[in-house]
Amino acid sequence: MEPLTSQSSDLQLDAEIAQKILVSFIADAIRSAGFERGVLGLSGGVDSSLTAFLAARALGPENLLCVAMPSAASDPTSLHHATMVAKQLGIKLEVVSIAPMVEAHLSRVNNKTNVRAGNIMARERMIVLYDISSRDDALVLGTSNKTETLLGYGTMFGDMACALNPLGDLYKTQVWQLATAAGVPDIIVAKPPSADLWSGQTDESDLGFTYRDVDRLLFAMVDQRKSDAELQELGFPREFVTRVQSIIRRNQFKRRPPLVPKISGRTTNIDFRYPREWGV
Amino acid sequence: MEPLTSQSSDLQLDAEIAQKILVSFIADAIRSAGFERGVLGLSGGVDSSLTAFLAARALGPENLLCVAMPSAASDPTSLHHATMVAKQLGIKLEVVSIAPMVEAHLSRVNNKTNVRAGNIMARERMIVLYDISSRDDALVLGTSNKTETLLGYGTMFGDMACALNPLGDLYKTQVWQLATAAGVPDIIVAKPPSADLWSGQTDESDLGFTYRDVDRLLFAMVDQRKSDAELQELGFPREFVTRVQSIIRRNQFKRRPPLVPKISGRTTNIDFRYPREWGV
Repeated sequence: MEPLTSQSSDLQLDAEIAQKILVSFIADAIRSAGFERGVLGLSGGVDSSLTAFLAARALGPENLLCVAMPSAASDPTSLHHATMVAKQLGIKLEVVSIAPMVEAHLSRVNNKTNVRAGNIMARERMIVLYDISSRDDALVLGTSNKTETLLGYGTMFGDMACALNPLGDLYKTQVWQLATAAGVPDIIVAKPPSADLWSGQTDESDLGFTYRDVDRLLFAMVDQRKSDAELQELGFPREFVTRVQSIIRRNQFKRRPPLVPKISGRTTNIDFRYPREWGV
Repeated sequence: MEPLTSQSSDLQLDAEIAQKILVSFIADAIRSAGFERGVLGLSGGVDSSLTAFLAARALGPENLLCVAMPSAASDPTSLHHATMVAKQLGIKLEVVSIAPMVEAHLSRVNNKTNVRAGNIMARERMIVLYDISSRDDALVLGTSNKTETLLGYGTMFGDMACALNPLGDLYKTQVWQLATAAGVPDIIVAKPPSADLWSGQTDESDLGFTYRDVDRLLFAMVDQRKSDAELQELGFPREFVTRVQSIIRRNQFKRRPPLVPKISGRTTNIDFRYPREWGV
């Protein structure tokens, strides 16, 4: 499936400008909250590697701590790639195994599934990162991209938990583009994306479509607000459109705060909703 | 400190109407998301007990699972009170100790503090609850009240994590009022509120003021939008007002989604912000 080439080119970023925006966003968000340091989970994948590159520029390598958090299921290549990035940037890499905490959970679970184990791992990593952020007075940088966010391909209160999310408005194909421009090693940009939660897992086999295809569709649907008829004219199969629309809707809860019933005159996240950086 | 009595009476709820609103909110929120069951962490305190009473009415006792999650630091009375509530309501109570997972974290932490340990415990409970919610196809009910939410007295991605938060718009003093009306045992309503994260902890000694005082201030300040001058006329000491205002501002980040830099035409939680229940 390859819709009009003009569609794909709309996903092209001006890499220089995008990097400038993201680097100053990171610096501003952390400093205006009264912090100097950032901490992030460096998996060795392209999203967290690019985030590390941008954050090292924004904060200075001495103010960025990366944490690699292998589980018993992690591919050893992941830690190898994380180490490569840390060396290249001159940043500290702390390695914390989540195997004992995960084992403590899994030992009480009868009906283990990959998804349940994966969610437990992602959330144990959140606990480690937030504990370190409190120890070090550092804010947690998220590493989710817009494709994952829209598709709900992530664990709430796990890898989706963060104070600021620099890549949150970039599609995966844009992350690849920016990663190359920013100097992330080719071997990391080129490898098949994987949450590395179980052996042989890849994002694209989990999702059932490629990032290149779904990003073109998401861009046309969400950013350009094309109608269903227009999407079909552009060459997107009807079932693909319907399926992705339903995934986005079904996962809206992951992107929004909890539901609260309105009782009083001013209710959190209904009419008491100052910006996050309010009053700092 | 006891400002105008008319102030305190404004915090009085019509307990009948409030219960009706909350019970139908719980039923609607869970069913409109395509679920029938709920799950909640029952600590044996007044907030989670009241939530259990309301949810049992909303969903039927057979559709509510309560989970008690003691740590090594928990007061045994807490589990005793949780058991009492479960018996009275005829609901299932599952007991999952978080001691092994917490120990796995604390064994790698050098500079242990009560706050770090408390956050780890609250987040381990979240992992257990969300794992059970996935096993049972049940939504997680939160048990945070408006006082805690405004003061940021809770752990992000820990006890604050939920799909719906029935008490989120009720001040603590209103929770007490409603709990009595709903039939929560007196011994639970009367005991000093505590997060039970370490021995002898009470909310009011953590916070440095009483719920009765701060609720009257929050109601006047947030709900009634009184100015600083009006608050002083009402008898609230200036330092108390300033301190609480600063606590609310400083914790705004806990109530809002992560910051995302705007790059594209439509950005999650900036201009792509359908309601949580969108399209269900």
